[in-house]
Amino acid sequence: MRHLITPLDFSVEETEALLDRADDIAANPKAYASCCVGKKLATLFYEPSTRTRLSFEAAMLNLGGSVLGFASADTSSASKGESVADTIRVISCYADICAMRHPKEGAPLVASLYSKIPVINAGDGGHQHPTQTLTDLMTIRAKKGSLSGITVGLCGDLKFGRTVHSLIMSLSRYTGIRFVLISPKELRLPGYVLQEAIVKKGLPYQEAATIEEVMPQLDILYMTRVQRERFFNEEDYIRLKDSYILDKRKMAFAKPDLCVLHPLPRVNEIAPEVDDDPRAAYFEQVQNGVYVRMALILKLLEVEPC
Amino acid sequence: MRHLITPLDFSVEETEALLDRADDIAANPKAYASCCVGKKLATLFYEPSTRTRLSFEAAMLNLGGSVLGFASADTSSASKGESVADTIRVISCYADICAMRHPKEGAPLVASLYSKIPVINAGDGGHQHPTQTLTDLMTIRAKKGSLSGITVGLCGDLKFGRTVHSLIMSLSRYTGIRFVLISPKELRLPGYVLQEAIVKKGLPYQEAATIEEVMPQLDILYMTRVQRERFFNEEDYIRLKDSYILDKRKMAFAKPDLCVLHPLPRVNEIAPEVDDDPRAAYFEQVQNGVYVRMALILKLLEVEPC
Amino acid sequence: MRHLITPLDFSVEETEALLDRADDIAANPKAYASCCVGKKLATLFYEPSTRTRLSFEAAMLNLGGSVLGFASADTSSASKGESVADTIRVISCYADICAMRHPKEGAPLVASLYSKIPVINAGDGGHQHPTQTLTDLMTIRAKKGSLSGITVGLCGDLKFGRTVHSLIMSLSRYTGIRFVLISPKELRLPGYVLQEAIVKKGLPYQEAATIEEVMPQLDILYMTRVQRERFFNEEDYIRLKDSYILDKRKMAFAKPDLCVLHPLPRVNEIAPEVDDDPRAAYFEQVQNGVYVRMALILKLLEVEPC
Repeated sequence: MRHLITPLDFSVEETEALLDRADDIAANPKAYASCCVGKKLATLFYEPSTRTRLSFEAAMLNLGGSVLGFASADTSSASKGESVADTIRVISCYADICAMRHPKEGAPLVASLYSKIPVINAGDGGHQHPTQTLTDLMTIRAKKGSLSGITVGLCGDLKFGRTVHSLIMSLSRYTGIRFVLISPKELRLPGYVLQEAIVKKGLPYQEAATIEEVMPQLDILYMTRVQRERFFNEEDYIRLKDSYILDKRKMAFAKPDLCVLHPLPRVNEIAPEVDDDPRAAYFEQVQNGVYVRMALILKLLEVEPC
Repeated sequence: MRHLITPLDFSVEETEALLDRADDIAANPKAYASCCVGKKLATLFYEPSTRTRLSFEAAMLNLGGSVLGFASADTSSASKGESVADTIRVISCYADICAMRHPKEGAPLVASLYSKIPVINAGDGGHQHPTQTLTDLMTIRAKKGSLSGITVGLCGDLKFGRTVHSLIMSLSRYTGIRFVLISPKELRLPGYVLQEAIVKKGLPYQEAATIEEVMPQLDILYMTRVQRERFFNEEDYIRLKDSYILDKRKMAFAKPDLCVLHPLPRVNEIAPEVDDDPRAAYFEQVQNGVYVRMALILKLLEVEPC
Repeated sequence: MRHLITPLDFSVEETEALLDRADDIAANPKAYASCCVGKKLATLFYEPSTRTRLSFEAAMLNLGGSVLGFASADTSSASKGESVADTIRVISCYADICAMRHPKEGAPLVASLYSKIPVINAGDGGHQHPTQTLTDLMTIRAKKGSLSGITVGLCGDLKFGRTVHSLIMSLSRYTGIRFVLISPKELRLPGYVLQEAIVKKGLPYQEAATIEEVMPQLDILYMTRVQRERFFNEEDYIRLKDSYILDKRKMAFAKPDLCVLHPLPRVNEIAPEVDDDPRAAYFEQVQNGVYVRMALILKLLEVEPC
């Protein structure tokens, strides 16, 4: 039995096969509408994340399966001092597969050790969020035709953003990738990620302080939120924040086939005027998130389309 | 694509067709049991309303569809500063239709402007609650045979009660309607509703301070709750409150074919002794709410019974 | 129409038939996968109990039915002063059967008096929790072949534990039962339960202060949690608590076919080292809880397997 705890749990070959399946689902959703009839997904959300939870639920419902679970620890007695090990053994009696969101890093990994059903990590603290990474990869591949040979800009909070770290580590397994790291100096990519995923593999990269200076090179621009509370002082925040807001003016410097991504929710880091630009792909990304989760559920349940 | 934001979004002809469909569903529920197989309803309740939410969910399940969503803003990360525009674009990737309850007036209207799926207003602040109005209309029509030529008493808080305003505005589009407005003077129907929906259309009406004095005339008695906090002083509240409580004694003055409605929940404005009176139709009204929402989902999804 | 409010609502014959059905479901779950297509279960949880709620939901989904409801009174407007009588009359319009959890003793009984659909008590305060008792009975019967002629040890908090009282009352209807009551003196079985269920029926019993002294006699050991706050003083708690923790050492005194049960969640009253002992049946018990609830839903809806 397989679980998905970190994005690197799947080999490149497995990831490619999963994305192929997700592409096929996007093209022929009706062919998958009864694959999981009689199967149940448990959504165990120890902290609320409506977007991620509903994406999993939509995925399972699209496959003809059904869903049970909880949306927050408040409405769950599971938090009453019970161990994650006991909870997952109980849930194993109720469902065929589960998606777990937990504020503590490592909780889904512990669950997977005691589970009788596949466990999907739906986000554990600041640690991992592998289905977001699969969603990002699917969208990049769909837009660019391949995950190799592209220049990927990552912009905003590269220090704390777990989706950024996971995406870099996953993309670094492909060939011909060039990273452009755009952030204020306070929020640069941590040294261990830079070393492990980029330097040791001999991948080219560039660090930049503004979007404008690197925009013309980019095939992908992955935006993330820059939170005010991350800055050491208000002055720096005010001086810098506009450099990390994507607007029409900055889009003018970009390639005609740039692809703009964002894990959402956004607050103001992408101006609404960008939404109508055909290069904005962040809502398409949301739709892909459902398809990739459908493919993942099929893979972990070892269900072939009927 | 159509949405339902206010009760007047549908013409009289559309409303009649919808009620015809709801009547047919009530008569032959099994004929509709598979109409929405594979379709998903999102229930987006930014404030809790169990009754309304479960009515929508029962409606979709009765049609063979499935449901996802959230029951309160607490268990939703959707409230984390994300705009309604972004939320609905995300939900459009997850579901085929949505019902939105929001404490802010106008939120469902904004959502409908950015949505790729039909949006149903399930109550926005003190503003509109169109599916309650459709439920009321269905019940009145089923009991009286028609929405024309009837005397409708509305009792209680006519000032703040949004269901009362919507019902008056909807009924004023029919012929031969006479309104009897029963309330303490502090809670009389606002001037703009009276002018727009009744006076300008030349409809006959009467204002009354007690139920007894007008009871014998009524075909319909629509009860609402009189909340203590609406009164300017405690003395008035104590003096007046009993005049707006329906009991067996007051029912004795009514026609044998009176029909008593209430949007529920009631607290004490209808004595439990009235429940067994065959003229009490407020629980039938709840059942009709499911049928009318089924008809609405079919209409907005443009699904014909199979 | 039948309801299930207390475990004794069903006669011994009915209980046996229900357990037969549950056994058959366990053996042939697929034969039951479409029994409740088109039927809806309402889960009305006025206080959170994730384990019980999800067990009911899994049961209904396994039967092909669907589920709606609420997980806590917070996300329910049902708590806004509305009577249980009114709530259940509304829910009767939405669902075919309901499971109600309520902090107030007797609330499910009141609901059953006004309901148009079968009501299952899913726990009412410290009072009753009949589906837990049915789960316990199913597990004991499956493990021992019969509910007669066995020695049943009950350990821990016998004073406040409602599952213990219900289990004793139910087992006392069978023949050849011997009870061994293992608890600190502060938490002994209340006199009225002892009198009614054991003494008056002439059943043999023994009270003990430690597990070790009685372990060799037991066919069943039903563990419950001993809460620190139940003790009159900290000194007694520290002195006594280890006597009520089951570990490998104590298991060594037991029969090779002992069966250990626990209603869960456990905190530390069963050491994790016991989990791998083949005599530990508490996770099997969780699985049986789903089967017995499936059998119960079928019985109350009067549905025969297709």
